Amino acid sequence: MERFLEYLQINTTLARDILVRFVRDEVQRNGFERVVLGVSGGIDSALSAFIAAEALGPQNVLGIQMPHSTSNPTSFADGTLVIEHLGIRHDQVDISPMVDPLMERFPDMTPVRRGNVMARQRMIVLYDQSMAFNGLVAGTSNKTEALLGYTTLFGDSAAAFQPIGDLYKNQVRQLAQAMGVPQPIIDKAPSADLWEGQTDEGELGYTYDMADQALYLLVDLRYTVEECVAAGFERRFIENVWQRVRRNHYKRTVPNVAKLSGRTLGHDFLYLRSWSAG
Amino acid sequence: MERFLEYLQINTTLARDILVRFVRDEVQRNGFERVVLGVSGGIDSALSAFIAAEALGPQNVLGIQMPHSTSNPTSFADGTLVIEHLGIRHDQVDISPMVDPLMERFPDMTPVRRGNVMARQRMIVLYDQSMAFNGLVAGTSNKTEALLGYTTLFGDSAAAFQPIGDLYKNQVRQLAQAMGVPQPIIDKAPSADLWEGQTDEGELGYTYDMADQALYLLVDLRYTVEECVAAGFERRFIENVWQRVRRNHYKRTVPNVAKLSGRTLGHDFLYLRSWSAG
Repeated sequence: MERFLEYLQINTTLARDILVRFVRDEVQRNGFERVVLGVSGGIDSALSAFIAAEALGPQNVLGIQMPHSTSNPTSFADGTLVIEHLGIRHDQVDISPMVDPLMERFPDMTPVRRGNVMARQRMIVLYDQSMAFNGLVAGTSNKTEALLGYTTLFGDSAAAFQPIGDLYKNQVRQLAQAMGVPQPIIDKAPSADLWEGQTDEGELGYTYDMADQALYLLVDLRYTVEECVAAGFERRFIENVWQRVRRNHYKRTVPNVAKLSGRTLGHDFLYLRSWSAG
Repeated sequence: MERFLEYLQINTTLARDILVRFVRDEVQRNGFERVVLGVSGGIDSALSAFIAAEALGPQNVLGIQMPHSTSNPTSFADGTLVIEHLGIRHDQVDISPMVDPLMERFPDMTPVRRGNVMARQRMIVLYDQSMAFNGLVAGTSNKTEALLGYTTLFGDSAAAFQPIGDLYKNQVRQLAQAMGVPQPIIDKAPSADLWEGQTDEGELGYTYDMADQALYLLVDLRYTVEECVAAGFERRFIENVWQRVRRNHYKRTVPNVAKLSGRTLGHDFLYLRSWSAG
């Protein structure tokens, strides 16, 4: 099934321009000049770093590598490739001494729980360094993983803003290619690298190209599940994708506050986003 | 200045009933039966535990105590008081082995940064245990601290839902009294207990009763700063409070996603909250 891939084609020149301006605007209107982001060696953080460096200058971008002792050394090497290519500021923090004690405290911890602990520990490091560096934390999540909920809440999805959050994985690849992200990073199999041999597509059970096409029809074109099936997709696959989108909606909202008063946070105490700048 | 304190009076019988039902509804419509929450020894987490135990039964509530080696032992003892009074399930996780390595890695870490690291480490433990216990994380933030932004983003403010998020601190005290929270917990000076001798009111520079009255006028009654001054509040105090509300607005919103497509997360891909239940 590749017939809807063409729908995902983007004008990379325009996207690059919009996203570079977005990062500059977001940072400046909040009174900052700098950003901090995790550099994992994957394509999402690589592209985010490229956009941030172009928006703010490499001296205003701090890329942090946060390996765990179980991480694939190739990931670290690929992260270094990004950092050296861009000439951004960088630091590295081994998260093993921080996460291992919790894993030892709960030795029955499943791989998913361990992955969540690692993702959240990286958030702690990034937010701590954002205060030290006086910069905002730039997110590195793409639209595919955000819609599928293939993220850790308060972990890799935690950020001040999301520069590539409206790009499907296929579109991330297009823009990464156009902006000169090193080819090995573009070509390798995407992996959260939370346990050995993990690949996103193996864990999800389908390719990103399949997921992207399905999500484009369901979300952007507002197809129903039935209409996707009529368009040629396997029913079980579409139902799985749509269920993931629905089930993980809580990850994309603020927590519900029990309403008692006339003006409640998240209910009727709401302001325009730009209101926060004052 | 106490003339507006009477505005903060609540019907505790009604509030108790609403909040108990809220917790039950939130948990059940998301397909769960249980909650996990941090029990710090403070009044907010004590009241939240009381509400949760009444809503779900004590066997369905897991209270976790998460001291650091620098925490005040009285806090722990007060937390134990809550747990024993309610008969809820409980566990304790010393966070020192997890947070100390990061503090040693960055020895110039300020008290605020250290406090944030501790608050976020507790989030990691709670969310990990929520998966082990198959329960939702119940928030323990009140309206005063949420409005003032006197919270750690992705730390103590991180939760699946906020049972007492629409109660000002003064109202938390009223309801805690009505529900039988042990008196020493109600009477002691509120403290995040992130460093020795810390009290919330000392750090904020004003009492909660002052903050609550100002916030009630500004938020619930939509007074302007000028109108608050005309009502008798000191200008510098009101400006400080209102600036905190504005400056910390980002803590109460989802991160801004750079818009490129026709349907973008947080912009036009929005659903009713109850949509997540399906």
